[in-house]
Amino acid sequence: MPAPDDEEPTVTPYAVRGDIDYETLLDQFGADRLTDEQIASFPDPVHPLVRRKIFYAERDMSPFLAAANAGEPHSIVTGRGPSGPMHIGHVFPFYFAKHLQDQTNTLVYIPFSDDEKYFLKDSSIAEISDHTRENLRDLLAIGFDPKRTRIIVDTADADVIYPLAAAFAKEITQSTVDATYGEPENIGLSFYPAVQAAHLLLPQLVAGRHPTLVPIAVDQDPHVRVCRDIAAKQRYPVDKPGALLSKFLPSLLGPGKMSSSDNAPSILLTDNRETVFEKIRTHAYSGGQSSIDAHRKFGGNPEIDISYQFLYYFFEESDERMERLAREYRDGSLLSGKLKEIAAEQITDFLDAHQKRRAKLGPVEDELAKYRLTDHERRQARRRAGYPDDSFAQL
Amino acid sequence: MPAPDDEEPTVTPYAVRGDIDYETLLDQFGADRLTDEQIASFPDPVHPLVRRKIFYAERDMSPFLAAANAGEPHSIVTGRGPSGPMHIGHVFPFYFAKHLQDQTNTLVYIPFSDDEKYFLKDSSIAEISDHTRENLRDLLAIGFDPKRTRIIVDTADADVIYPLAAAFAKEITQSTVDATYGEPENIGLSFYPAVQAAHLLLPQLVAGRHPTLVPIAVDQDPHVRVCRDIAAKQRYPVDKPGALLSKFLPSLLGPGKMSSSDNAPSILLTDNRETVFEKIRTHAYSGGQSSIDAHRKFGGNPEIDISYQFLYYFFEESDERMERLAREYRDGSLLSGKLKEIAAEQITDFLDAHQKRRAKLGPVEDELAKYRLTDHERRQARRRAGYPDDSFAQL
Repeated sequence: MPAPDDEEPTVTPYAVRGDIDYETLLDQFGADRLTDEQIASFPDPVHPLVRRKIFYAERDMSPFLAAANAGEPHSIVTGRGPSGPMHIGHVFPFYFAKHLQDQTNTLVYIPFSDDEKYFLKDSSIAEISDHTRENLRDLLAIGFDPKRTRIIVDTADADVIYPLAAAFAKEITQSTVDATYGEPENIGLSFYPAVQAAHLLLPQLVAGRHPTLVPIAVDQDPHVRVCRDIAAKQRYPVDKPGALLSKFLPSLLGPGKMSSSDNAPSILLTDNRETVFEKIRTHAYSGGQSSIDAHRKFGGNPEIDISYQFLYYFFEESDERMERLAREYRDGSLLSGKLKEIAAEQITDFLDAHQKRRAKLGPVEDELAKYRLTDHERRQARRRAGYPDDSFAQL
Repeated sequence: MPAPDDEEPTVTPYAVRGDIDYETLLDQFGADRLTDEQIASFPDPVHPLVRRKIFYAERDMSPFLAAANAGEPHSIVTGRGPSGPMHIGHVFPFYFAKHLQDQTNTLVYIPFSDDEKYFLKDSSIAEISDHTRENLRDLLAIGFDPKRTRIIVDTADADVIYPLAAAFAKEITQSTVDATYGEPENIGLSFYPAVQAAHLLLPQLVAGRHPTLVPIAVDQDPHVRVCRDIAAKQRYPVDKPGALLSKFLPSLLGPGKMSSSDNAPSILLTDNRETVFEKIRTHAYSGGQSSIDAHRKFGGNPEIDISYQFLYYFFEESDERMERLAREYRDGSLLSGKLKEIAAEQITDFLDAHQKRRAKLGPVEDELAKYRLTDHERRQARRRAGYPDDSFAQL
């Protein structure tokens, strides 16, 4: 396991440092632990990310579930910051959204914050734009229902995103931003919380008031809170978006936040079978003992074993099998190498299917067209944000 | 004359307070006094605003004049913040731009900062939008050449304005904004300097590198300086925009800044003859004596007489006549009431012509269409700001 940082633990959308205590975070952020009742009220089958409490906390999730179960409009917003190639952890929330969409016709909104990534990273617009294009292919490969899914790219859909963000920006003070995120490095980052509010309120602005759920890693919660404050003022015909907060996804190097921005090795969506096996074999942090003999004698610890965690988080749906693997790992009958092989196999299966769908896509522009906001939807969103019907944007 | 403020004089784009010393401001801002040689190098006839040094200072204006005189591309950017009905002072820079366009085919870019006005004022988006529509009619009534003029409304042209502003926002720190403008009240205002940079660099991003001139009241100079800093870094194919800085336009109540946002009465572009005469008679600060006898004996002071100043700034082109009026006012033969009548008459003539052109306009949308950025121009601007040609904005 990586050595704990000396610093005070910090969790903001731009920095996660130190030892993370998920319970303390809940108190700090004022979110609620996900209850077994709530988990049971998800449509059947409940996605492993929920069933296994990777999503472990929430804000105002119940209206979303009620609407989903009643066949009423409900939406998920889950975005992507295109700062590099996507790794397997990045797609968990999207596959989770797809799972719900298949079950209850969930509206899924996917904003690409290419502006934020440009503000944050030492990358040119052209570089961010290349990542956007590649990441879009991965999003499109998931196979969302185009009728019920909208993909937004901030700088490409600025005709609707900027007017909405401008409307909300007036409600957000610089000192709120400083207190929530730390002092921003540039004025793009100062403004970005307003753009994020536009993302999270967009489904309601397009389709009318309804429960929205934002499934995100717990460090992104401040964005949701800023947006909820705006919605709470009731100046716009929207309800406060709910949130479903997840633990950090595991990194190959051990428990903690997995990020393609670190130099930590990670499994990319484009990795082939050999690469996946190689990365797992070489890098996947093991909860096993240092020798086979010791392992057979003392057993391994699945809690910190990354191969086990990958399976547990996402790649193995069967609870029964997970329990068996844990039992056999703990009693030493399942060796670390074998567990790695199982994980690599399951991940490869998943990637094979994903990559096949990706390869079948036509040009990104053509595929994306089906998922873009229609002119009518853009007008609706602008109108509900307060821009008159006859705004010049409609010329 | 209004009593001088007790406070330290302050001049930022959001606050003008205290006694303004135009010379001190130049030192403070680091701009240069307009020289007689420069004035003489304007195309003939030189506009009264320049000839009479209402525009009294500049930054990098020479390349603009050289291009104008050589028949090479050159542009003026002069914007409008649609926070209320326009008064006569608001149109001076636009008529100045039109004058130059008629002389040397100047490209004229007119950005409407409806976003900034919404961030700044206690007005709803719908109210700002109404002002935008009415102000647009006034701008359209000026009769710019549609081939060489572009009108941009920030929230309506956000498809190009936001990507450009985002590009520049990365180059502007929050502390620069705090130091330049004072701490912003909301994050819309934090971001706005990037939008303003997009305005000022837009002509070059659309049409290629060329000298741009920004004719503005001296209090708006910080916007130009922020933008010049961005251009100076040479990350974009643009030169630093030049500036032509004016004194504050006179208010009816006396010398100082004229603003429709104060409660000071002002002459609106829509005022009819009776209203203009009434406002001048009732409110125009007089440099005359308190009785006719005293006036005939001691004479008046044209320097502080608002009727005289209106004529001098804009409404009387003949220098000879202005000199005669000043002489006769000083020697007491021209009475204050008569001077008021002359000013009211000239202003009315101007407004009659403006209002006639305004009345002849078709629906604003149709008229505006000729002045909007073309799709090709939008692509060019985005491309030069660093967004790749195949950006999804072009779908």
